Amino acid sequence: MSSTFGTLFRVTTFGESHGRAIGCIIDGCPARIPLTETDIQPQLDRRRPGSWALTTPRKESDTVTILSGTDRGLTLGTPIGLTIPNADTKPLDYSAMEAVPRPSHADFTYAEKYGLRARSGGGRASARETAARVAAGAVAEKMIRTFHPVEIVAWVESIGANVAPRPDLATITRADVDKIPVRCPDAATANKMIAAIAEAKQAGDSVGGVIACAVRGVPAGWGEPVFEKLTAELAHAMMSIPATRGFEIGEGFGATLMRGSQHNDPFTAKDGGGIRPATNHCGGIQGGISNGEIIFFRVAFKPVSTISLPQPTAAFDGTPIVFEAQGRHDPSVLPRAVPVVEAMTALVLADAFLQQQVQLIPRPGATP
Amino acid sequence: MSSTFGTLFRVTTFGESHGRAIGCIIDGCPARIPLTETDIQPQLDRRRPGSWALTTPRKESDTVTILSGTDRGLTLGTPIGLTIPNADTKPLDYSAMEAVPRPSHADFTYAEKYGLRARSGGGRASARETAARVAAGAVAEKMIRTFHPVEIVAWVESIGANVAPRPDLATITRADVDKIPVRCPDAATANKMIAAIAEAKQAGDSVGGVIACAVRGVPAGWGEPVFEKLTAELAHAMMSIPATRGFEIGEGFGATLMRGSQHNDPFTAKDGGGIRPATNHCGGIQGGISNGEIIFFRVAFKPVSTISLPQPTAAFDGTPIVFEAQGRHDPSVLPRAVPVVEAMTALVLADAFLQQQVQLIPRPGATP
Amino acid sequence: MSSTFGTLFRVTTFGESHGRAIGCIIDGCPARIPLTETDIQPQLDRRRPGSWALTTPRKESDTVTILSGTDRGLTLGTPIGLTIPNADTKPLDYSAMEAVPRPSHADFTYAEKYGLRARSGGGRASARETAARVAAGAVAEKMIRTFHPVEIVAWVESIGANVAPRPDLATITRADVDKIPVRCPDAATANKMIAAIAEAKQAGDSVGGVIACAVRGVPAGWGEPVFEKLTAELAHAMMSIPATRGFEIGEGFGATLMRGSQHNDPFTAKDGGGIRPATNHCGGIQGGISNGEIIFFRVAFKPVSTISLPQPTAAFDGTPIVFEAQGRHDPSVLPRAVPVVEAMTALVLADAFLQQQVQLIPRPGATP
Amino acid sequence: MSSTFGTLFRVTTFGESHGRAIGCIIDGCPARIPLTETDIQPQLDRRRPGSWALTTPRKESDTVTILSGTDRGLTLGTPIGLTIPNADTKPLDYSAMEAVPRPSHADFTYAEKYGLRARSGGGRASARETAARVAAGAVAEKMIRTFHPVEIVAWVESIGANVAPRPDLATITRADVDKIPVRCPDAATANKMIAAIAEAKQAGDSVGGVIACAVRGVPAGWGEPVFEKLTAELAHAMMSIPATRGFEIGEGFGATLMRGSQHNDPFTAKDGGGIRPATNHCGGIQGGISNGEIIFFRVAFKPVSTISLPQPTAAFDGTPIVFEAQGRHDPSVLPRAVPVVEAMTALVLADAFLQQQVQLIPRPGATP
Repeated sequence: MSSTFGTLFRVTTFGESHGRAIGCIIDGCPARIPLTETDIQPQLDRRRPGSWALTTPRKESDTVTILSGTDRGLTLGTPIGLTIPNADTKPLDYSAMEAVPRPSHADFTYAEKYGLRARSGGGRASARETAARVAAGAVAEKMIRTFHPVEIVAWVESIGANVAPRPDLATITRADVDKIPVRCPDAATANKMIAAIAEAKQAGDSVGGVIACAVRGVPAGWGEPVFEKLTAELAHAMMSIPATRGFEIGEGFGATLMRGSQHNDPFTAKDGGGIRPATNHCGGIQGGISNGEIIFFRVAFKPVSTISLPQPTAAFDGTPIVFEAQGRHDPSVLPRAVPVVEAMTALVLADAFLQQQVQLIPRPGATP
Repeated sequence: MSSTFGTLFRVTTFGESHGRAIGCIIDGCPARIPLTETDIQPQLDRRRPGSWALTTPRKESDTVTILSGTDRGLTLGTPIGLTIPNADTKPLDYSAMEAVPRPSHADFTYAEKYGLRARSGGGRASARETAARVAAGAVAEKMIRTFHPVEIVAWVESIGANVAPRPDLATITRADVDKIPVRCPDAATANKMIAAIAEAKQAGDSVGGVIACAVRGVPAGWGEPVFEKLTAELAHAMMSIPATRGFEIGEGFGATLMRGSQHNDPFTAKDGGGIRPATNHCGGIQGGISNGEIIFFRVAFKPVSTISLPQPTAAFDGTPIVFEAQGRHDPSVLPRAVPVVEAMTALVLADAFLQQQVQLIPRPGATP
Repeated sequence: MSSTFGTLFRVTTFGESHGRAIGCIIDGCPARIPLTETDIQPQLDRRRPGSWALTTPRKESDTVTILSGTDRGLTLGTPIGLTIPNADTKPLDYSAMEAVPRPSHADFTYAEKYGLRARSGGGRASARETAARVAAGAVAEKMIRTFHPVEIVAWVESIGANVAPRPDLATITRADVDKIPVRCPDAATANKMIAAIAEAKQAGDSVGGVIACAVRGVPAGWGEPVFEKLTAELAHAMMSIPATRGFEIGEGFGATLMRGSQHNDPFTAKDGGGIRPATNHCGGIQGGISNGEIIFFRVAFKPVSTISLPQPTAAFDGTPIVFEAQGRHDPSVLPRAVPVVEAMTALVLADAFLQQQVQLIPRPGATP
Repeated sequence: MSSTFGTLFRVTTFGESHGRAIGCIIDGCPARIPLTETDIQPQLDRRRPGSWALTTPRKESDTVTILSGTDRGLTLGTPIGLTIPNADTKPLDYSAMEAVPRPSHADFTYAEKYGLRARSGGGRASARETAARVAAGAVAEKMIRTFHPVEIVAWVESIGANVAPRPDLATITRADVDKIPVRCPDAATANKMIAAIAEAKQAGDSVGGVIACAVRGVPAGWGEPVFEKLTAELAHAMMSIPATRGFEIGEGFGATLMRGSQHNDPFTAKDGGGIRPATNHCGGIQGGISNGEIIFFRVAFKPVSTISLPQPTAAFDGTPIVFEAQGRHDPSVLPRAVPVVEAMTALVLADAFLQQQVQLIPRPGATP
């Protein structure tokens, strides 16, 4: 199901960058969860373009409206329809592109797949649709946090070769991350990142980077082996975000350099009874199921494809042409992608949490 | 749906390491595809333990039987049931483990999730269930190759710090890979890998590594935006394999160090008309849809959790204990995971191929 | 997936009777299908209340807007978002009902399921959400008819004991059906129906009836055994419509009175080659797959639950109370349900048509 | 998903009438449910052919084996693989049929859909696959009854025009039903049914009938509006059984002859607090959700298509031919279909029960 994500907490999105509106339907949210637009708008604001000099000048208020599914501030258990208007559209920005597929953009593959060339500025492939995901993710978070104090915090760990040291995963907050608009919680690295982005913008080029994410408060037991392991669902969710190129959890590719005796997380007694892992190389997920420790993963983003530098390429008909992008584009998507990563994490966890409920049904005395 | 993979080409697997049998049902394979056990057995043989001195001495013939879905060597279009017996089971190997969750294994999280401790040697979490996936993947390949000459070739790219140079992706074959049992096509690196594995085995420890995979012959247009992008489906498939820790496509995390002007793949005229990308930094997938170029990705595997070295840990009740694994286990799963990576790739592609058919329906003259 | 219908042609609806809007997302419609609001509005108009003196005075323009998924009048292959405003809402009509569950309405079961009592006039259970289905069904029809000249025609076959003779299934059209607002193509029976409805309205009561539906132009081969047989999908679709109580196909319950020698449909040579059934007792579907003949089925609708007659009942707390419904309600839903039955039929057929494509993939010469 | 039924309690079946075996995988059954083959075998025995002189002489022991998913008599929470051997196969019984599609059988439509003619005696369309459903249904019942004392009892209500009076739905049991092999709990009607079946067998013909089913013990709140209403799911489940032609719930088509004032079920105070419907015209489901009353529905079965009487028909190539079925076939499937109806009911309820759990998650004090 290509525009639907989830089995029990299901989100279906619609909308392109230049249609009337984008939005989504959230189906399967339990009833009686407190929910109004004020629960959703903050994450949308964090994703919004136009809030920082180094990002797209396209100014959208991205105001969300709840069309259904709530009554007097509580969810009804029925589908929640959300819509966000596309207010700032300039179709002519992209009109020249129809004969020329933009390098590394989805124009070529969409034409091959669907047999037409959409004039809608990248259409569904544009990052505009991620706004609907962010809205849905905020609802997912509200739902989960009704039951468990889960905290999802993502940040920009690197831009190019500028890599921030790891913060304390037990205490990092979104407020820490938002102190600087580039969303790196280490001030020194943040300054280098800003410089790198500004330099790329000046050069008409773009840069990539890595977003790291920590999740606290997830109890043990979430995840559905074998094909809906929590690791697989997170990987799927992150790699569905435009511009992603890699995903790793815990020690990630670094684990391939370790020995089992180093990478294993043995157990230790927990205060109050039971046990917990003594270390956390696995990033909070063992055998595809959460183990109660902090979930930690990293997502790699390529440098944005749309750059102003002239690019020798070919038109659809094979004619050599030098392509120079017009219009508005970000030299780096990383800071704006932070709430998108958080939203996709929330969607995965919401679904895993609801699916786990079947194992928790109280057992009455009478059995056949 | 936790034990089902796919939307149109759907595989549902069952079986643990010590039950009577493992197997799967393949639902949605078109009719009239030639298929007998001889199309499936070779990949199973490549996965089998006991075929090499450095792997588990557990000897299983892993003979597959087709229970339904074919007639006179052709698929009927009905569900294909496959079963593989568990012949070599020694339950007592694991009996001592019930009070002690093995470090970094799924014992703890399965107990937390399901509320019981299975005596079945890791049960569903063990890699035994991957045999069913390999069988299903062979059927998927047979189906795809009835229509397109797709070739899926995976190999061991690294064991620990021993990294092989990249082979020629346009020509690498499974025969090249299988020349040496460690499944690295570069002889010099292969020898270092063998030494590293032997050394780890001697030490009672384990090593991890990276499997790389190339896919040739996929035409442009496969993949279903936005949530079933081909990149996301591959990530999901690979990260559902036991012991995986990371996935990256094309330049992967390396793309984060590149500029857009370096990472972009501009177009060039193609012989016979049309265009194709001139370079392939994206690894064959743009905007989540295949672009006709070689698909290339890498999967990180952690060092296996079950090691013989004594590990200070705790029993379920918190009692400190030193755990020494008995029984049989591999110091490295990488060579045996190669056909598993190929199988999951085949499942993803089979589903994407079938889903693309709705865009290719011939259009008659009469329209309303 | 409770608010989604379909596997490949997937419709997800949202909206209650008194929220801001209702709508749906259609995901999986192939690209390049001609589509504008004018393709959808006519069926919505046929469903609309307020168009006839004997129906609800609630006047809604039910104007649909396409929010995404098309460009210059052709579908893009991306999700199609449709929205219909709820313009005529009078929440106070229902305010008195919160302490008293309306007899045979969903108030009681929704309260039991979701743990709250919605003030939204029956909320999701109200027939208002069927407007979104009718919109989606019109898109489904447009898609199918791009490829096959399928015609779906439903009509009111009975109201109470007033049963119309069967029309010629090979020629009945929507124009025939719409000649009289009660949507029965037999004028004599239609007059009796109008009288029966008026009498019920006068009495503050309601009546039920049967809608029959014929589908021409479906080729053989649609339907997916065993659980998505065309018969099962149609039954599911029809029984999801509010107020339905029964479904039967072909001879239906009447088949239980026949012998096999009477009910069987033997074959006969077809002009131009091949064969076809000589009779059509099975209603166009054999073994769950369409056989090329006219599909014929009937759907039973109960008398509407909301009546003005005083009903002795109990409030939620058990207090005996006499309930007298205020507000606006239809004495019979049958005429307005006709386009809903046609819409659900279109959704089932759209999905079956797309799923059948995997059996029609052209086979190239090269096989492995 | 054509061979899978359910969203959370998912059953995927495989197998044809003459392959090696039939079976299924049950995915999503919670852990710690007591389960061994003895929980499944009784319902399979009730379905088995050869247990009564008036049914098919084909003798199968239909012995089920659990291949996975349990340990020491408890479910693990992992997929449960079940297999049943096809022991009594006589392929030559059907060999003459390949050139001639049997009237009203699935031979013609399977050939049209899949492009081939299977020699497997009707293949997947034969009622043999229902054995796998019965096995899965027994597991579903075991699971549900771990939590709620649900009782599902079906019986043959009519054979042709011989209609039994309704038994007391509050007390009818399977033991009552099984007193007479024709599975009608009214002795007088049962005798007429036996005579009718014997007469049809003598004449080389077949008869149809209606199976009624009552379900006690389902609490209010099961069912997922709008597309997975309990009524729609039951209709879907029943109409997926071979030879079905109609489904109705509560008063069914009879409701179309009633007025709202007669058909409505007003409420009355319940002993111990709360309310319940005072009557049960709706058959236990309101607005698609169970209301706590007895669920009652009826399923129409056509007369079996395979009869010995000569039938003038045509071969695939159009040649007129008189078809005389060889082999073994039942003059009536009704008695053997009783456990199939019960099994499909159990599958629907198991899924609805698990889906309802998300509304019952305990709410802690801390909310964000």
